Amino acid sequence: MTSETPSEYFASRRERLQAQLEAREIAALLVTNLTNIFYLTGFRGSAGVALIGPSRSVLWVDPRYTLQAREQARGLEVKEVRGSLLKEAVRWIRRRGLGRVGYEDSTLTCREFSLLDQARNQKLRWVPSGGLVEDLRVVKDTEEINCIRKACRLTVEVFEEVRREVRPGVRESDLAAEIEYRMKRKGADGFAFETIVSSGLRSAWPHAHPSSKLLQKSDLVIFDLGAILGGYAADLTRTLYLGAPGARVRRLYNAVREAQERAVEATLCGKRACDIDRVARKALERRKLESYFTHSTGHGVGLEIHEKPRLGRSDKTRLESGCVITVEPGVYLEGFGGIRVEDTVLVTAGTPEVLTPASKEAWYTG
Amino acid sequence: MTSETPSEYFASRRERLQAQLEAREIAALLVTNLTNIFYLTGFRGSAGVALIGPSRSVLWVDPRYTLQAREQARGLEVKEVRGSLLKEAVRWIRRRGLGRVGYEDSTLTCREFSLLDQARNQKLRWVPSGGLVEDLRVVKDTEEINCIRKACRLTVEVFEEVRREVRPGVRESDLAAEIEYRMKRKGADGFAFETIVSSGLRSAWPHAHPSSKLLQKSDLVIFDLGAILGGYAADLTRTLYLGAPGARVRRLYNAVREAQERAVEATLCGKRACDIDRVARKALERRKLESYFTHSTGHGVGLEIHEKPRLGRSDKTRLESGCVITVEPGVYLEGFGGIRVEDTVLVTAGTPEVLTPASKEAWYTG
Repeated sequence: MTSETPSEYFASRRERLQAQLEAREIAALLVTNLTNIFYLTGFRGSAGVALIGPSRSVLWVDPRYTLQAREQARGLEVKEVRGSLLKEAVRWIRRRGLGRVGYEDSTLTCREFSLLDQARNQKLRWVPSGGLVEDLRVVKDTEEINCIRKACRLTVEVFEEVRREVRPGVRESDLAAEIEYRMKRKGADGFAFETIVSSGLRSAWPHAHPSSKLLQKSDLVIFDLGAILGGYAADLTRTLYLGAPGARVRRLYNAVREAQERAVEATLCGKRACDIDRVARKALERRKLESYFTHSTGHGVGLEIHEKPRLGRSDKTRLESGCVITVEPGVYLEGFGGIRVEDTVLVTAGTPEVLTPASKEAWYTG
Repeated sequence: MTSETPSEYFASRRERLQAQLEAREIAALLVTNLTNIFYLTGFRGSAGVALIGPSRSVLWVDPRYTLQAREQARGLEVKEVRGSLLKEAVRWIRRRGLGRVGYEDSTLTCREFSLLDQARNQKLRWVPSGGLVEDLRVVKDTEEINCIRKACRLTVEVFEEVRREVRPGVRESDLAAEIEYRMKRKGADGFAFETIVSSGLRSAWPHAHPSSKLLQKSDLVIFDLGAILGGYAADLTRTLYLGAPGARVRRLYNAVREAQERAVEATLCGKRACDIDRVARKALERRKLESYFTHSTGHGVGLEIHEKPRLGRSDKTRLESGCVITVEPGVYLEGFGGIRVEDTVLVTAGTPEVLTPASKEAWYTG
């Protein structure tokens, strides 16, 4: 669990942030996004405000979290506040006349910003700096990779167990409940997203919620699942077919699987996110299936299930060793069904490492 | 499920909003909070922007949701957008020169607001209007009460089943997993919050996450759980004691139970939220326990688990028939344990209705 993460990891993340702030001539960053606060300090409460600065860093919490914050956020000055944390943080910053102070405009609400705005004076200027911490989070450190690896391993284990229970007559929502139950029993903190089990015609909706539909013979069934462990998410999709596959299903499945595997192989240091997307898209184009591939090829995974980069047509982020992304092409044919194959993949200096090596055997003929 | 909610309900909610807008001389409200969009239109997608106006109301969605939006958001003009929904909505509004248009400043981010700000001109003024829809949501309509009632019934059923499995040697996290599994199997859409099972000394932390700790003889065990059904949340807390209670545990439990029941009885039309809080606090004061009651007495429940009003010292909201709130005093003694008893309660014209009538028998001596 991340509570065991050595405090050096958090300190080193704050140092990476400092370098970014200096380059932008920002004296300190007011961090209000809780995920970013956890990333930078180790504090996991449900409320908190942090200021990350060169000389010192401060964390404001309410009385519920004082002890926890002192234990988790080593190296930060913890201040207990009754009342509005943000108001108190802004007051503190104003008194110190820090100059240019960054704030997370991509998550701070207008109403919250009005508190900042009222405090502006000649010695204090607010600089919109949303996305700075999210950009740092694109490349994972060893501790983060360990957490994601464990979350992926647990997710694969659960899928391999539950696939044995997949047969005609079983309810989609019961399989989803079974998956989530087993994840929890194996120690997951929670689920990265609502588990998807969608079968038959419903599998053609990329984000169908599990329904009370019973699985039937000749159904395509999409499973999309991911545990959260130590705060980090995993993401895995497999598609099964309930029966002996005809030529069409076989052709479609093999095309998606091939596109996915080509794209995984292309997940190399120095490639751009859009390059990986193009590899998947081209592979489906060769089978005349590109028009059925209606979403992007993948996304970063970490503390959140959807992080930067986006493996779509326009994201030019260069992959680096330590990036963790999903590779998940799919095809969706209305009135027929859908197929998606997805792995969570670690970019390394060499060959990419598939963190979710669940079987891709799709034909269920039990 | 709410997909069966007749469209008149949504139309009538929009009419109530209209009245509020007229009183404030606002021509239309730009709604960006997805929960509020669902409340006003019936649309349940994961992305959308709505404009609620007197002559017509519009819903902007991406191509994934066009069909769903047409089906769910009856009475609204649905516009399919490729690219930024907000940008397109703002462009549309600007072209119409609507005058004073409200926006939800309590949830819109600074970055999103910059899109609005750029479009401002003499014919278009943005008026911060966050909280307007949330205020309407305080009083539930029949359809909403039905949904909450069902969610509460399911939650009670699951608790009554799982309490039979509570005994020394069982793991906190396994009981939490069991609760969530049973909720899903009974048809819950999801969980209103992460289920709490905290035992022994850990029960003294009001919001402890379930751990791998095994339940032991003489442990206090707090269960805090709630299903989501048809989009609406339930909230129930019970405390069990594993053994024959000594005088101290008995005294503490009875004091909390009494405080809770007094506060429930006080949940009458016309009372203010702070009055209910005071009743609970006074009851604990009489037992010299008020310093161990470290949170507020409750909160509104509906589409979100925490809604207005807040049953704390300073919230003067008057309760009306149709309000649904939690009543949940507790005491937390570090180094000893915690006790909390909570019900979801419907305010009526007469006696309040407890929607979560689970047994309050706390002594487990099996």
